[in-house]
Amino acid sequence: MTDTAPLRLGIAGLGTVGIGVVKIIRRQAALLQDRAGRPVVITAVSARSKDKDRGVDLSDYAWEDDPVALAKRDDIDVFVELMGGHEGPAKDACEAAIATGKDIVTANKALLAHHGQELALAAEEAGVRIRYEAAVAGGIPIIKSLLEGLAGNEITRVMGVMNGTCNYILTQMQATGRGYNALFEECAELGYLEADPNLDVGGIDAGHKLSILSSIAFGTQVNFDAVELEGIQRIQLEDIEHAAEMGFRIKLLGVAQMTGRGLEQRMSPCLVPASSPLGQLEGGTNMVVVEGDAVEQVVLRGPGAGEGPTASAVMGDVMDIARGISIPTFGQPASTLRPVTGAKAAKPAPFYLRMSLLDKPGAMAKVAAVLGDAGVSINRMRQTSHDEKLAPVLVVTHKCTRDALDAALKGFAETGVVDGDPVAIRIEEL
Amino acid sequence: MTDTAPLRLGIAGLGTVGIGVVKIIRRQAALLQDRAGRPVVITAVSARSKDKDRGVDLSDYAWEDDPVALAKRDDIDVFVELMGGHEGPAKDACEAAIATGKDIVTANKALLAHHGQELALAAEEAGVRIRYEAAVAGGIPIIKSLLEGLAGNEITRVMGVMNGTCNYILTQMQATGRGYNALFEECAELGYLEADPNLDVGGIDAGHKLSILSSIAFGTQVNFDAVELEGIQRIQLEDIEHAAEMGFRIKLLGVAQMTGRGLEQRMSPCLVPASSPLGQLEGGTNMVVVEGDAVEQVVLRGPGAGEGPTASAVMGDVMDIARGISIPTFGQPASTLRPVTGAKAAKPAPFYLRMSLLDKPGAMAKVAAVLGDAGVSINRMRQTSHDEKLAPVLVVTHKCTRDALDAALKGFAETGVVDGDPVAIRIEEL
Repeated sequence: MTDTAPLRLGIAGLGTVGIGVVKIIRRQAALLQDRAGRPVVITAVSARSKDKDRGVDLSDYAWEDDPVALAKRDDIDVFVELMGGHEGPAKDACEAAIATGKDIVTANKALLAHHGQELALAAEEAGVRIRYEAAVAGGIPIIKSLLEGLAGNEITRVMGVMNGTCNYILTQMQATGRGYNALFEECAELGYLEADPNLDVGGIDAGHKLSILSSIAFGTQVNFDAVELEGIQRIQLEDIEHAAEMGFRIKLLGVAQMTGRGLEQRMSPCLVPASSPLGQLEGGTNMVVVEGDAVEQVVLRGPGAGEGPTASAVMGDVMDIARGISIPTFGQPASTLRPVTGAKAAKPAPFYLRMSLLDKPGAMAKVAAVLGDAGVSINRMRQTSHDEKLAPVLVVTHKCTRDALDAALKGFAETGVVDGDPVAIRIEEL
Repeated sequence: MTDTAPLRLGIAGLGTVGIGVVKIIRRQAALLQDRAGRPVVITAVSARSKDKDRGVDLSDYAWEDDPVALAKRDDIDVFVELMGGHEGPAKDACEAAIATGKDIVTANKALLAHHGQELALAAEEAGVRIRYEAAVAGGIPIIKSLLEGLAGNEITRVMGVMNGTCNYILTQMQATGRGYNALFEECAELGYLEADPNLDVGGIDAGHKLSILSSIAFGTQVNFDAVELEGIQRIQLEDIEHAAEMGFRIKLLGVAQMTGRGLEQRMSPCLVPASSPLGQLEGGTNMVVVEGDAVEQVVLRGPGAGEGPTASAVMGDVMDIARGISIPTFGQPASTLRPVTGAKAAKPAPFYLRMSLLDKPGAMAKVAAVLGDAGVSINRMRQTSHDEKLAPVLVVTHKCTRDALDAALKGFAETGVVDGDPVAIRIEEL
């Protein structure tokens, strides 16, 4: 807190979030100075098109066409990376910032998921900071909570609904009875989807976020490749409805926990109790649940995207740097983070299964036999009425391991009475 | 982060929380050292009785009978104050710690609510830190979130359910149909109540917490005397039931917001929508809602008390100090915090009213006339059936100011048909 010189930012990327940051710094200059003990100013900016009208006056700031040139400028202290993308300009510019002794504030989950460990090592060697509150769950201060507020805990599990678009689709299916495809199209029209929609509905974007949380929570190197990914594309309206009848909601839920066999990281649709905070989460809102040996369970909820909320998270990091707060990128020196291999979900859980049976005598018996042979016991099973040649069958299992379930799924394919691949959704215990 | 010498704690107070802290430091020594970059150790402890069996081995630590002597020891860096009480030993010991250059970590909401400003001034003059995550909402990292994570926001409103005992009583009334008095007795037997129960059910404890949050949120000097306090003692089962019928829950809710007339701080029973996160909060769990100009709304939920959760919060502060994090006590230098006077709730809100009318002709008309004269318009009004001479009457008003409502309440007393004081509960808009 002895440094009272202005903290000078260079902002690369002037999309929604970048402009949100510019607006906060202009609107709240006095407040920020009161809290930081020094002015927070923008020196230079960079984006693809200089001429685009962004609704704010940028004429006070130097312009760079090239974000790498921006990162290298002598008149900035912090490089604020809001471009996105895990290769190319964002990575090059962050490397240039580190090489020239700048702190980095970024909202780039893909960059950290793919290159977090190498960037953290480089930053710590260079004596600069990387902060990334905005990379996970928008306006929710989850990185700070996990990194600092809960630092006295051995974290036992981290869970999160961290893709607003997926949660919007799933809750709208529930609320309106419209199908997945119709809502997917609506999201595309509303601009809620990434250019590659699979980043959203395939769980990749949320998986990036989970891999970052895992690193902080468990003292491990970020390992996105070890995240078991499953998207929401196969969830049908009937799954939503059946889940609701049983008192559940379906969420694209990330779960990370350390097991004896390694770090389990899953991003997949799960059934959660309708009455739980996760079950009650609607629309584009995000939620992260942290469980620790001392704190028991803490739940954080807030907007997962948008100009203001994401800019709020960026500014939280900027203010930390202005105030001289410095801790290692993932909470302990990057050189001490342990490499981990992925572990398949080891802890037994109940599963929801939906499949289509060919209308042949003995079909149900064959399905039941496969489950029994795999060691999967049945809690509930029901065949709903049908007019077609395919009979919809629902099964809720008692707790079983994922291995046992996979054995059963393999067995179904060999019965000759199950049409296509069954839908299997874990029921997550909260 | 250059300091690698052990951080030495002196812990005053070995009740539930103090012992929780001792346990974490013993159990997680390696983890804490990895994260802090230095060992975190206990040097000395103090409590009322040295001989009491607390279930943990304290023989490695020096013992002081007097917390002031503990605070002054040369071999501690941080004075951890877990005794409680806003005068006497806790205050004396904190002053001694400041005078001898020790940082302070405390869970003492009463001390900060009454003496936060003077302690912050003294600490900043002495160049030491005061941290107090455990003073508000137990394991929830709300102080850090407000002080740091959301530091880029102009905070517009802070709300919280921050007394677990009151929330337990209110949700048990709802769930079991038991009355306030029976549940109060149960809480007394279970040890859920403070020695002076009015601290809980009178809203004082939660009011202390609200006054601390207000200071951080609005850059003002802690002013507990300006908190409008109302306890839950007058809430009857029928209020809970009527509220539920209308889709509401009754919560002891703290609300702080800056108005043109000053800082509004209220801790009082409120009706909140049953489907909102606050409405869904059950039992002893706490919840804090923060609204800011950029972040919109963030909700934090977690255990508000207990050994592990409160010790987790204490350790978050200890880890911050171990990591060299230093920011002013209330987020900006104490000398720059503005003094505030209290403002009565200025923003109009709907109110729930319950009263008993004498069974006289024209009684309802008189009540309606009083409301009309005060400028309070009626949304719903109903007289329920009765056998006694008193007729229970319920009114839900349209939005009105607190002044208008108070005028009506005064008017009722003059009608000669209203028995006793009506119950008036604000319907908080979320």
